[in-house]
Amino acid sequence: MSEKQEHSRRGVLRTAAGVTLGAGIATGASTAPAAADGGGSRPPGQRNVPREVAILLYEGFTALDAVGPYEALCRVPGVRVTTVAVKAGPVRTDTGELGIVAAKTLRQVPRADVLVIPGGGERGTTESMADVRILEWIRRVHRHSTWTTSVCTGSLILGAAGLLRGLPATTYWASRPYLKEVGAIYTPGRFVEAGKIITAAGVSAGIDMGLHLAARLSDQRVGRAMELAMEYDPEPPFGTGSPEKADAETQALALKLLADSAT
Amino acid sequence: MSEKQEHSRRGVLRTAAGVTLGAGIATGASTAPAAADGGGSRPPGQRNVPREVAILLYEGFTALDAVGPYEALCRVPGVRVTTVAVKAGPVRTDTGELGIVAAKTLRQVPRADVLVIPGGGERGTTESMADVRILEWIRRVHRHSTWTTSVCTGSLILGAAGLLRGLPATTYWASRPYLKEVGAIYTPGRFVEAGKIITAAGVSAGIDMGLHLAARLSDQRVGRAMELAMEYDPEPPFGTGSPEKADAETQALALKLLADSAT
Repeated sequence: MSEKQEHSRRGVLRTAAGVTLGAGIATGASTAPAAADGGGSRPPGQRNVPREVAILLYEGFTALDAVGPYEALCRVPGVRVTTVAVKAGPVRTDTGELGIVAAKTLRQVPRADVLVIPGGGERGTTESMADVRILEWIRRVHRHSTWTTSVCTGSLILGAAGLLRGLPATTYWASRPYLKEVGAIYTPGRFVEAGKIITAAGVSAGIDMGLHLAARLSDQRVGRAMELAMEYDPEPPFGTGSPEKADAETQALALKLLADSAT
Repeated sequence: MSEKQEHSRRGVLRTAAGVTLGAGIATGASTAPAAADGGGSRPPGQRNVPREVAILLYEGFTALDAVGPYEALCRVPGVRVTTVAVKAGPVRTDTGELGIVAAKTLRQVPRADVLVIPGGGERGTTESMADVRILEWIRRVHRHSTWTTSVCTGSLILGAAGLLRGLPATTYWASRPYLKEVGAIYTPGRFVEAGKIITAAGVSAGIDMGLHLAARLSDQRVGRAMELAMEYDPEPPFGTGSPEKADAETQALALKLLADSAT
């Protein structure tokens, strides 16, 4: 018996990284049969080539827009996630308070299997919509991608790159009418799949899309497992998470808080 | 009429950062009265002193554990969020694929109004539970904090610092039995409030707790508005986000994916 099997037999509990945290407390889960290699939808003969998920970062992006899909995709078998920006290194979010590191430059990532474009504050979104380096990179990667995706106002950046013309899509709740301006057709939903393009609604909707994508890149079992791995059994405390559920005062205050926190 | 008011009268739409994205499309929301200064529970006379939220980062933390509360708290009026680690600069997450920047060292943040301890992979969690620099910092900040909080296995780090003895608490689903070892009493819930300590369940539960805390630091209106600002109207695609809702195969696969992705 290998050390690994013996370890498993002891039935030790696991933390979020799934390795032993200590000894002695049994759980049924860790002794159940290990399932799925997660290669469900991978083309034959490519099982050992990691598929690259490239998440674009740009000054003024919204942190959760990028980190939601990252967290849902980073443990999918055979998937490697990388962060990409015009310049490698720390990129500031829309509040200016947080920096997330871009591992690579746009030039270093000419192709990716999955492209994720997060949304951002007004400045970040509009600057990206006008940045030819970003738009050309998106178009180039999209040409060969398996999936091209966005979260929140990221869909307006996809739209500015000309990728949403005539397609159903979604975006941040307050920006829905802007989809028309990039030729897309606003369609309700936490995420909207149109061919190989998936657009998610605002901020936290990137988690829902990420889990959907985890299953698309692998199989339903991996999707279900990642939902549990993220303990995604949400109980929103206020029930005001969409404009349909929030009154005018809440909508106005949300927009004010967003404006006041923007850099 | 001020430029700001005139701007508002035009009724332009707003993006996630709440500022104008373009011109011409009207929305009722942006012309509704601006509400709440969000100073609800702030002590009188301290309305202009920003309250500091300190999020601990450590090698091997789980990205969403930190970014969920960050996103819920960073736009609360009068609140400033900072990231803190043993060493300032990029800190790697549990997969090693993502780096988030710690703005300050532990020494630079001797006090904070709100302390947030994210969970992490096995290595990150156990190393932090044994790191006296981290444990002493947590105890020191906790002494004067308004709220001391954790997400996921972060509660085990709070426990290792001796803060959970005899208290109801929660943690990552797979780590629940470990709470006993740090003297806490496992209590079901997306988050559990015990005096000034709030512990959240796994990973995504930090969003629920963050929104609850946003209201606690301000008022219910701000909580409701932040839930909308994050468009937190979740539709988990698989309905397997807790061990009570996931079968044994899903639990086993979740643990395997976590183990295989750990550095």
